[in-house]
Amino acid sequence: MPDPDVAAAARARQATLTKPPGSLGRLEDLSVWVAACQGQCPPHQFERARVVVFAGDHGVAAAGVSAFPAEVTAQMVSNIEGGGAAINVLAELAGAGVRLVDVAVDCETPLSETIGAHKVRRGSGNVAVEDALTDDEVAAAIDAGRRIADEEVDGGADLLIAGDMGIGNTTPATTLIAALTDTEPVAVVGRGTGIDDAGWMRKTSAIRDALFRARPVMSDPVALLRVCGGADLAAMAGFCAQAAVRRTPVLLDGVVVTAAALAADRMAPGARQWWQAGHRSVEPAHTLALSRLGLEPIVDLGMRLGEGTGAAVALPVLRAAVATLASMATFAEASVTDRPADPAP
Amino acid sequence: MPDPDVAAAARARQATLTKPPGSLGRLEDLSVWVAACQGQCPPHQFERARVVVFAGDHGVAAAGVSAFPAEVTAQMVSNIEGGGAAINVLAELAGAGVRLVDVAVDCETPLSETIGAHKVRRGSGNVAVEDALTDDEVAAAIDAGRRIADEEVDGGADLLIAGDMGIGNTTPATTLIAALTDTEPVAVVGRGTGIDDAGWMRKTSAIRDALFRARPVMSDPVALLRVCGGADLAAMAGFCAQAAVRRTPVLLDGVVVTAAALAADRMAPGARQWWQAGHRSVEPAHTLALSRLGLEPIVDLGMRLGEGTGAAVALPVLRAAVATLASMATFAEASVTDRPADPAP
Repeated sequence: MPDPDVAAAARARQATLTKPPGSLGRLEDLSVWVAACQGQCPPHQFERARVVVFAGDHGVAAAGVSAFPAEVTAQMVSNIEGGGAAINVLAELAGAGVRLVDVAVDCETPLSETIGAHKVRRGSGNVAVEDALTDDEVAAAIDAGRRIADEEVDGGADLLIAGDMGIGNTTPATTLIAALTDTEPVAVVGRGTGIDDAGWMRKTSAIRDALFRARPVMSDPVALLRVCGGADLAAMAGFCAQAAVRRTPVLLDGVVVTAAALAADRMAPGARQWWQAGHRSVEPAHTLALSRLGLEPIVDLGMRLGEGTGAAVALPVLRAAVATLASMATFAEASVTDRPADPAP
Repeated sequence: MPDPDVAAAARARQATLTKPPGSLGRLEDLSVWVAACQGQCPPHQFERARVVVFAGDHGVAAAGVSAFPAEVTAQMVSNIEGGGAAINVLAELAGAGVRLVDVAVDCETPLSETIGAHKVRRGSGNVAVEDALTDDEVAAAIDAGRRIADEEVDGGADLLIAGDMGIGNTTPATTLIAALTDTEPVAVVGRGTGIDDAGWMRKTSAIRDALFRARPVMSDPVALLRVCGGADLAAMAGFCAQAAVRRTPVLLDGVVVTAAALAADRMAPGARQWWQAGHRSVEPAHTLALSRLGLEPIVDLGMRLGEGTGAAVALPVLRAAVATLASMATFAEASVTDRPADPAP
């Protein structure tokens, strides 16, 4: 867990800064968390924040659960490579780098050597009718996520963000959250990229079928990733779990990443202490998963785009928290009175 | 009002960007608003965002309505001049400049030539027992705010933020909001910098007395600023109103600035169309004033510090909105499929 002694020192330092105690609200809590994760007070500003976008296709897209055709996954991977996607724009503004990983895009060969080094398979299975992955594949995907986290931390990353890109991916994500929280799908199925009512019914039906198939493995997060998840989700779970092992803070994004994180916290109990929720998406399953993880989103802007965009928008708020604890003057330094007003006359 | 044709063009451009329609949520609305304010689509990123901190003392502080003694106002002005306050740290991170204005700090001479050019008087009157300002002073204060807005816009400012600094200032601010919304004070009095229960009772009592004194002028915003406001509040009202005249967008901060903005929108109906609410503070009167202005805060982080800090934390979100509309690739540019998925088999 993040260092409790440093957390206490950070709380104490907050009380010395030139502002009414507690008046920075959530920024104070976030600053204490970052200091504890870094093991130093005051904390340093993030110097190498990294967004890793995990791309993968899902066989269930063929069941008409998305508003976009499956070919869009590979097209959007190219768009991200070319710097034109929302995550490119938002990460640059927030001072974060973007790395793209083709975990399971449905194309014969990896889209490029750079992004295909960790490719597990060509599209994950249609969870409504078959397992998403084999035993070997789920292990390989989790391991890929762990290795990517290691590579990033070894490369100097001091904050990690996971993002997703894959047509149909909110279907397995919602299935995972429903399975891990024992929730009826109808209560948590959202509209993903924007399906209509008929699409919503197909999606709900696919999730119900996937949950039925998952019945025998409900208590096993790795088996759930295999049966009703997917290679991208398994890789994100490995990534989030390994970030905790490497004592590196993580900003979670939306419903897909948080589904993986919920599985990761079951795989590695307590890993959640190294994570904050960047934003609250409009997907109902996202709020459910955040609540189970005990995480409160930093911003709530009605976003539902994925790619890590919600976390990227929240990153400047986390930077603001760090900056205030690191750089504000103390009462003593600024010769500001730190005693209560005299009682009223 | 911001240009409705440009707003329509911005909405249309949002629909061409490589993301599901509407998936950037609030960011899309904010981007459309900025484009309309700038009169151009795509909008340009803010190049000269400016925070103006209006400092002033309030005679009512002597009634024990604040957790801090009145001497802290001048000390904090020095702290802001020295770069050690929260607003300095947060504005720098958000890429905004900070200007400090001594409108009515309770000291014999202006604290310095730079910040004292618009000084109206030494402390505003104790609104519980006397008018805050004379007729001439309220006119001078509003005019000072207008001139400061003009100076900033003439100097190239493309986004304005007003901030406050003044011990006791949430008391006249809450009085103004109660008066302008016809609300019982007990429903909206907050704890400011952190008063205890006895202080809260003194504050509520002072606000009730001030409201009683304001009875004859309830429908006149300028008279309310004179009777139960203060020079800093009047200057902020002039500033917010003039920003609208100069077609320059404003990010509002907390309860003090928003009280002034509420008065400004009565002085100049429709000015509110040039404003967004940066954040929601924990002061109950702030939520009431935002609701009357029809403004939804961008972030909600439990802050209650003033100085413009809540708006400064929200500024990167507004920048994110601008960046996505300005810089994302379109479906055509990125060769991404923009048609619905085929119907399910």
